Amino acid sequence: MEFTVEEIARMLGGEVRGEGSRRVSRFARIEEGSEGAISFLSNLRYEPFLYTTKSSAVIVDRGFQPRQDVTTTLILVENPYAGFSRLLEAYSQALQFSKTGTEEPAFLGKNATLGRGVYRGAFSYIGENCRIGNNVKIYPQVYLGDGVDVGDNTILYPGVKVYARCSIGSGCTLHANAIIGADGFGFAPQADGSYQTIPQLGRVILEDNVSVGAGTTIDCATMPQDATIIRKGVKLDNLVQVAHNVEIGPHTVVAAQVGISGSTKIGAFCRVGGQAGIGGHLHIADRTTIAGQSGVSKSVEESGRTVSGFLATDSRDYMKSQAIFRRLPDLEKQLRELEKIVKNLNLASPDDGPMR
Amino acid sequence: MEFTVEEIARMLGGEVRGEGSRRVSRFARIEEGSEGAISFLSNLRYEPFLYTTKSSAVIVDRGFQPRQDVTTTLILVENPYAGFSRLLEAYSQALQFSKTGTEEPAFLGKNATLGRGVYRGAFSYIGENCRIGNNVKIYPQVYLGDGVDVGDNTILYPGVKVYARCSIGSGCTLHANAIIGADGFGFAPQADGSYQTIPQLGRVILEDNVSVGAGTTIDCATMPQDATIIRKGVKLDNLVQVAHNVEIGPHTVVAAQVGISGSTKIGAFCRVGGQAGIGGHLHIADRTTIAGQSGVSKSVEESGRTVSGFLATDSRDYMKSQAIFRRLPDLEKQLRELEKIVKNLNLASPDDGPMR
Amino acid sequence: MEFTVEEIARMLGGEVRGEGSRRVSRFARIEEGSEGAISFLSNLRYEPFLYTTKSSAVIVDRGFQPRQDVTTTLILVENPYAGFSRLLEAYSQALQFSKTGTEEPAFLGKNATLGRGVYRGAFSYIGENCRIGNNVKIYPQVYLGDGVDVGDNTILYPGVKVYARCSIGSGCTLHANAIIGADGFGFAPQADGSYQTIPQLGRVILEDNVSVGAGTTIDCATMPQDATIIRKGVKLDNLVQVAHNVEIGPHTVVAAQVGISGSTKIGAFCRVGGQAGIGGHLHIADRTTIAGQSGVSKSVEESGRTVSGFLATDSRDYMKSQAIFRRLPDLEKQLRELEKIVKNLNLASPDDGPMR
Repeated sequence: MEFTVEEIARMLGGEVRGEGSRRVSRFARIEEGSEGAISFLSNLRYEPFLYTTKSSAVIVDRGFQPRQDVTTTLILVENPYAGFSRLLEAYSQALQFSKTGTEEPAFLGKNATLGRGVYRGAFSYIGENCRIGNNVKIYPQVYLGDGVDVGDNTILYPGVKVYARCSIGSGCTLHANAIIGADGFGFAPQADGSYQTIPQLGRVILEDNVSVGAGTTIDCATMPQDATIIRKGVKLDNLVQVAHNVEIGPHTVVAAQVGISGSTKIGAFCRVGGQAGIGGHLHIADRTTIAGQSGVSKSVEESGRTVSGFLATDSRDYMKSQAIFRRLPDLEKQLRELEKIVKNLNLASPDDGPMR
Repeated sequence: MEFTVEEIARMLGGEVRGEGSRRVSRFARIEEGSEGAISFLSNLRYEPFLYTTKSSAVIVDRGFQPRQDVTTTLILVENPYAGFSRLLEAYSQALQFSKTGTEEPAFLGKNATLGRGVYRGAFSYIGENCRIGNNVKIYPQVYLGDGVDVGDNTILYPGVKVYARCSIGSGCTLHANAIIGADGFGFAPQADGSYQTIPQLGRVILEDNVSVGAGTTIDCATMPQDATIIRKGVKLDNLVQVAHNVEIGPHTVVAAQVGISGSTKIGAFCRVGGQAGIGGHLHIADRTTIAGQSGVSKSVEESGRTVSGFLATDSRDYMKSQAIFRRLPDLEKQLRELEKIVKNLNLASPDDGPMR
Repeated sequence: MEFTVEEIARMLGGEVRGEGSRRVSRFARIEEGSEGAISFLSNLRYEPFLYTTKSSAVIVDRGFQPRQDVTTTLILVENPYAGFSRLLEAYSQALQFSKTGTEEPAFLGKNATLGRGVYRGAFSYIGENCRIGNNVKIYPQVYLGDGVDVGDNTILYPGVKVYARCSIGSGCTLHANAIIGADGFGFAPQADGSYQTIPQLGRVILEDNVSVGAGTTIDCATMPQDATIIRKGVKLDNLVQVAHNVEIGPHTVVAAQVGISGSTKIGAFCRVGGQAGIGGHLHIADRTTIAGQSGVSKSVEESGRTVSGFLATDSRDYMKSQAIFRRLPDLEKQLRELEKIVKNLNLASPDDGPMR
């Protein structure tokens, strides 16, 4: 696949600055470019590379003004990173795995229905009464329990397991070994200290355009009529744990190894950093940012805040305390000095006790 | 399925207060009830809803005294939460997946024996010399290595992997993609800094009524005659890591994403919060509670304690330090003020040095 | 299998001290030995057991001098732990699962090539154009996407998933349900707050002798020509997350549930403790030790350091602050005392304000 810079600019609705007839056939980081490659400049920290790059074309912001001579050809667009992504996407689709049909053996339960253009890999299992949309890709060793729905164009990578009655939207991507709808962790303590299992009878709903990382687990709701709900556009990274009855609002992004406890509601457009833990029965307002490794034990009521740390509070406050935490040995020494000086003033009465 | 309140009270050994002839066919939270639903009241924070609920019946504690008029019908029992769970359980079993027999293709090794009423899903694998008890459910894509034992009534959800020679008790539930018996992490450092793998030759024993969450990993013991042991009634949530030679005592409950390092022994009736980490070669006494995200680096010798935080110590002490941590910026400012005042007294000798 | 102590000493290149004709047939910890068992003594904390053990032979360091009478037979070697491991290894190989050939049904894509002595378990899937080396063990329910390479003697345990075009070296061990090459977590924010998926077009390279734990996930690189690289001899424990474009240097060891963010480069011979998190775009120098549960947010430029804690800094400094953290309530009380005393001196001017 080779295109001229002009052709690419047209695809992106951008404007060419320089030689439009140059040919590009590869992607490269701006600092590693070579003849025939296309790069992008979004983070201005990388601007110096623009003046030295060997890439044949660089996608830049429409408002960008070079401060030195530029030998590469520029493509000016609204959002260079998104433009570059669109090119990668087009490339990816051209390469795309385009299998359809069934590799045998594959299991299809009674009364299951399949849309057009579906791929069913070998050793995949589709339970009774499942409804599979058009162009769905079901890789080898996927399991769909009875009564599962899958929307159009969704991709289920190898080893994905979806328990009975769960619902997966359109345009979703579930990575290898993701698990949707396992039992929530519900046990009623008995008089003797042992536990009785609370049956988990609800399900999981993934709305459209949800992405679920490899090995991530999303538990079903407890009550038959309830669901754990992942709203449209949510992106979950690998090895994330989502407990029963959780709801995650639209377009929220959750990094790897985060744990979200039962019945917590997370708003829209939130960002949760890796390995953070969020307690149960909380409400996290829209557009909240939770720093990596935080432990959130209280609801965040006001939208747009950033919280950090163990028993996460406002990020700025936390960072202040954390900075002093590192100076605690000095601080303690200073306190001791001060005590000594005050003591030497000989004004402290001898029965003051706990001074030392 | 529809029952009268009287029928349900009889099932639960409870007493009716109000109209026993009302009919219920659904479960509902007390705050969301409607005609035909049954709810329960256990946490008294929810008591106000009892007086407004639309549910036809509510299960309450035998000793409960309403403070206002009640229009719903009450069922008085010993433990309302457990009673409600028992109803859910009955409902769940009525719905229950009751397949038996084999979906082809499924693999059965030489000399493997199967009890009565076993279900073997498509693409499941049972190795040589396995012994499978009665009414065991082996979902699709499960793998049991050679010589694995599985007790009666155990459920192995899709994608569970059990390495050779491990033993699973009766009444256990292993959720999707749980992994039992992978190699412990043992490597002997060599003179050149590289590592020689220590073969892991032991196995894993799960006693009866153990529950293992989705994606959870339990490693085998190192020595051929040893086992990593999970005692009866233990409940492990999703994505928990249990290292080699660990033992977890009866009826201990471990929340999601906890990591337990090698050779640690955890007592009975303990509770471990999500994302906690427990170091190696420790002993945790019976009835210990470990707060979420804690890092436990010392044994807990006295039973019944609660520990929290990094290098977890007594929870009350930790919370006190944590409260001051948040006020550290103020504290430091106060120390600086004090230093200034003392300095102004002009009594500090000039060679005191490290005051600032 | 039974050997004389002399035969074992010869296998290990060691020297016998005592009766070489004694027979051993089992392994045992030195504190649990019995007639016919062999043990080792490496950590001298266990030396007292040497004088009481019932084991027939104990492997000890060549330079070891007993301080009391010894009734067991000693085998003197360079490195007792490594020697013992070598015996376990030999034992393990004698037991070893030595299946070759194919259990049907198993899927083999077009133009895939298989070396000599390969085992393909039932329900395993090998995509088109894969190249599988000699003596590779592919357990049931393994998935290898199109164009995957696997080197000689590598073992892929049940349920391992390798995405298309990834490369696995020789002598590697991938434990159950490990996932190699899932998409990195890359999403470009759009003007409306939603996210556009950045296609992840690169791959993963595992060099030789890499060990990957159960349920561990290693994401592919973003750009088509790039790879996430795990260098030779690296050992990753269970449920580790390795993000896109990461590189892990030779012989580095990573404990369970660690998360490594995108584009970070970790040096050789490092050791990372369980549940640690490492931020993105960092560089960790060779021979760095990162304590368990640390949060590393800055590069470690100098090799050989140990770092700990949240926003990990030098371990010694961190532990000092942590020690004072526990005494914060006392420290605060002392500060308050001091304030009171100074105030009583009546020298602070009344407008000093923020003293209390």
